[in-house]
Amino acid sequence: MQILSAQYVITSAKNPPLIDGALVIEKGKILDIGPKKQIFSHYAQAEVIDFGESILFPGLVNAHTHASMTIFRGLADDLPLMTWLENYIFPVERHLKPEWVYWGAKLAIAEMFRSGVTLFADMYLFEEEVIKAVEEAGVKATLGEGLFDFPSPNYGPLENGLALTEKLFKDFAEHSRIKIMACPHATYTCSPDTLKAVANIAERYDALIHIHLSETKDEVSLIKARYGKTPPFHLDSLGLLNERLLVAHAVQLTDEEIELLAKRQVKVAHCPESNLKLGSGVAPVPALLEAGVCVGLGTDGPASNNDLDLIGEMRTAALIQKGLTFDPTKLPAKDVFSMATSLGAEALGWPELGCLTKDGPADLAVIRLSSSHLTPCYDPISILVYSARAGDVTDVMVAGEFVMRDSRILTFDEDEAKQKVLEISQEIKALLGR
Amino acid sequence: MQILSAQYVITSAKNPPLIDGALVIEKGKILDIGPKKQIFSHYAQAEVIDFGESILFPGLVNAHTHASMTIFRGLADDLPLMTWLENYIFPVERHLKPEWVYWGAKLAIAEMFRSGVTLFADMYLFEEEVIKAVEEAGVKATLGEGLFDFPSPNYGPLENGLALTEKLFKDFAEHSRIKIMACPHATYTCSPDTLKAVANIAERYDALIHIHLSETKDEVSLIKARYGKTPPFHLDSLGLLNERLLVAHAVQLTDEEIELLAKRQVKVAHCPESNLKLGSGVAPVPALLEAGVCVGLGTDGPASNNDLDLIGEMRTAALIQKGLTFDPTKLPAKDVFSMATSLGAEALGWPELGCLTKDGPADLAVIRLSSSHLTPCYDPISILVYSARAGDVTDVMVAGEFVMRDSRILTFDEDEAKQKVLEISQEIKALLGR
Ligand SMILES: [Zn+2]
Ligand SMILES: [Zn+2]
Repeated sequence: MQILSAQYVITSAKNPPLIDGALVIEKGKILDIGPKKQIFSHYAQAEVIDFGESILFPGLVNAHTHASMTIFRGLADDLPLMTWLENYIFPVERHLKPEWVYWGAKLAIAEMFRSGVTLFADMYLFEEEVIKAVEEAGVKATLGEGLFDFPSPNYGPLENGLALTEKLFKDFAEHSRIKIMACPHATYTCSPDTLKAVANIAERYDALIHIHLSETKDEVSLIKARYGKTPPFHLDSLGLLNERLLVAHAVQLTDEEIELLAKRQVKVAHCPESNLKLGSGVAPVPALLEAGVCVGLGTDGPASNNDLDLIGEMRTAALIQKGLTFDPTKLPAKDVFSMATSLGAEALGWPELGCLTKDGPADLAVIRLSSSHLTPCYDPISILVYSARAGDVTDVMVAGEFVMRDSRILTFDEDEAKQKVLEISQEIKALLGR
Repeated sequence: MQILSAQYVITSAKNPPLIDGALVIEKGKILDIGPKKQIFSHYAQAEVIDFGESILFPGLVNAHTHASMTIFRGLADDLPLMTWLENYIFPVERHLKPEWVYWGAKLAIAEMFRSGVTLFADMYLFEEEVIKAVEEAGVKATLGEGLFDFPSPNYGPLENGLALTEKLFKDFAEHSRIKIMACPHATYTCSPDTLKAVANIAERYDALIHIHLSETKDEVSLIKARYGKTPPFHLDSLGLLNERLLVAHAVQLTDEEIELLAKRQVKVAHCPESNLKLGSGVAPVPALLEAGVCVGLGTDGPASNNDLDLIGEMRTAALIQKGLTFDPTKLPAKDVFSMATSLGAEALGWPELGCLTKDGPADLAVIRLSSSHLTPCYDPISILVYSARAGDVTDVMVAGEFVMRDSRILTFDEDEAKQKVLEISQEIKALLGR
């Protein structure tokens, strides 16, 4: 039994923060939560970690990423999407190695811990390597192997990818920190038959499907030309639009499509920085939330962001909506904090995460308030969203275990991951003739 | 004589970074600059500081802020502008005390050093307190007392404000780190007569005028209704639109106004995060740059941002233009880096700053690349703009003197500033009855 206390404890965006609050942790769960004085006297025997002048908050949820793409961070920026993909990402991904994916994911998890993330959604190639990194790092994840019609450098032809997805569903059915989802890449890389086959598997395992959807205007035009329907209606006609679908981006949506996503209880992962950086646009988040859609927040891959900082992503999400609507009251700090916690957790199939409650899981992070840029603190949710940054996070706990303590990652060797990714970046430069 | 060396030395946005570069510093200036090997053998006697796996770059320039407003950081967010001003900022500013301005500025300078800033533009009340903070901290600044038609809590009636501005021009005419500018607040708070009086003083001292201009649609409507002209044409008719004018914001501009600003050689301080957060919109930065306008980058006050992080501001500036134009090639990293360095320096009247050249001033900052989120580094300008954050800066030098070394501020007691601002925040809460 362990007591954690802090000047501010944010239990969820819905409740006012506890001032001088404390949590009792036992067997990975929150046994009790309340004012520090009361908790200290009730549990006089427990070990106490007092974080003092700090904010303790629910672990953040990164609702969409390709973690291993840390190896491509900043490889080529400010380019048209097709130049970036065809001249840089695809030529290198053709030579992708399992160990690149593993070390890239390790480095990504270090970076996510440092931004307070305890759960993330991932879709990439050689996903078993990501799973290995997740298991060793002690983080939680909902993830799956990227599926598309052309041959994969990992599994080869699609049928092997479908078999691999089934194998993962079976192997990780009982895992306490990992959930598998089926990950068709997008409607423009997966044929209707592929999507139906994927839907069939996901249904049999009662699992999530994760897909990129309505990211760019070009995608919408392409799908319309190919199938006579926009991407959401195309998916609906194939029977994929339901409460087990998590779509990334959802930038280019009509009002009718927003209503459709709401009616079908589809979940959305909003990735504002990637959408801005790649010139895709800005998702209609306030309209989605008003329609009742569950909208989480994601960074997308670190090659198109170029970081995995979910704190910065909250800030960008809030600022962009205000600026575009000329309305400073749009998407207030509380709402983006919900997106980065409870809504993201729900979207990823972990409805019990994203908040701190009695008998709930002890997945949390701590920010020390002693820095100049976090002084003064009139409102802990405001300071977290508008002034804090990744790097201010000092401590992270997943399922009652510290994975980061006093800014040091405990579960794996962060320096080794950095060193390995540096070596991989040399190989990538050589591949590109640089 | 001192040698500074680093894995990457960015001399300016225009030149490719030096790999394994070094600078020789003597009497506040850069005596020599070149490859590490060459510099080491030429100046074998000099003391060497090797920053190793780092980026050394020109000190950044914050082209518009109200530094002391750190005391209001996060006091009230997500509110309509008028509610924020009338229910929070104005009632407290009526009770503003000189020591609040002093400690607020001290804390702000600490935060700016930690974001690599060595020069900033400031306009506020009790500006002599900001000057005191600037002198003690060893930073450079172009600043002035905010002027408007209604009585000031500092100088009382406007005539005293004009006299104070003249006094500052005289007192700091020869200062090596401080330049004074005349600071009429805005066209909606300063009458034509006030603006002409200010212009007259600035002309006599051959000094900059700094004003908020075309920030919001409401401002444009108001000035049109009052004077029959939009804010830029209104200023032009009063004779203020010339190469000695630095305008903050410039969000709501027509193509004709962009041409006018270019023709008159007016300088612009772009403040994207404040413009987004207050719901003002997005300035037409690519069009301004294409027209040949000198556009620097500013944070605006930390009450409407809510930080003084110029690295984050570069990132936001770049991302927002791409997202809005659906063009990822818009405002590349190099261009925003120019805005945050040489263009900002030129706008603030220090054309010799914002780059690292032989015989130029030694104003610079260092970022250590050893963090996970800065791994790997394919391109130092990309990593600085898109992946780094304030807090990654470890060392800052102004005029050849370290003001921050190994993440510790050397010129003043940062903890004291934090403590004072915490106390001030308690007074502010009491004033607001919280
Ligand atoms: Zn993606
Ligand atoms: Zn301002």
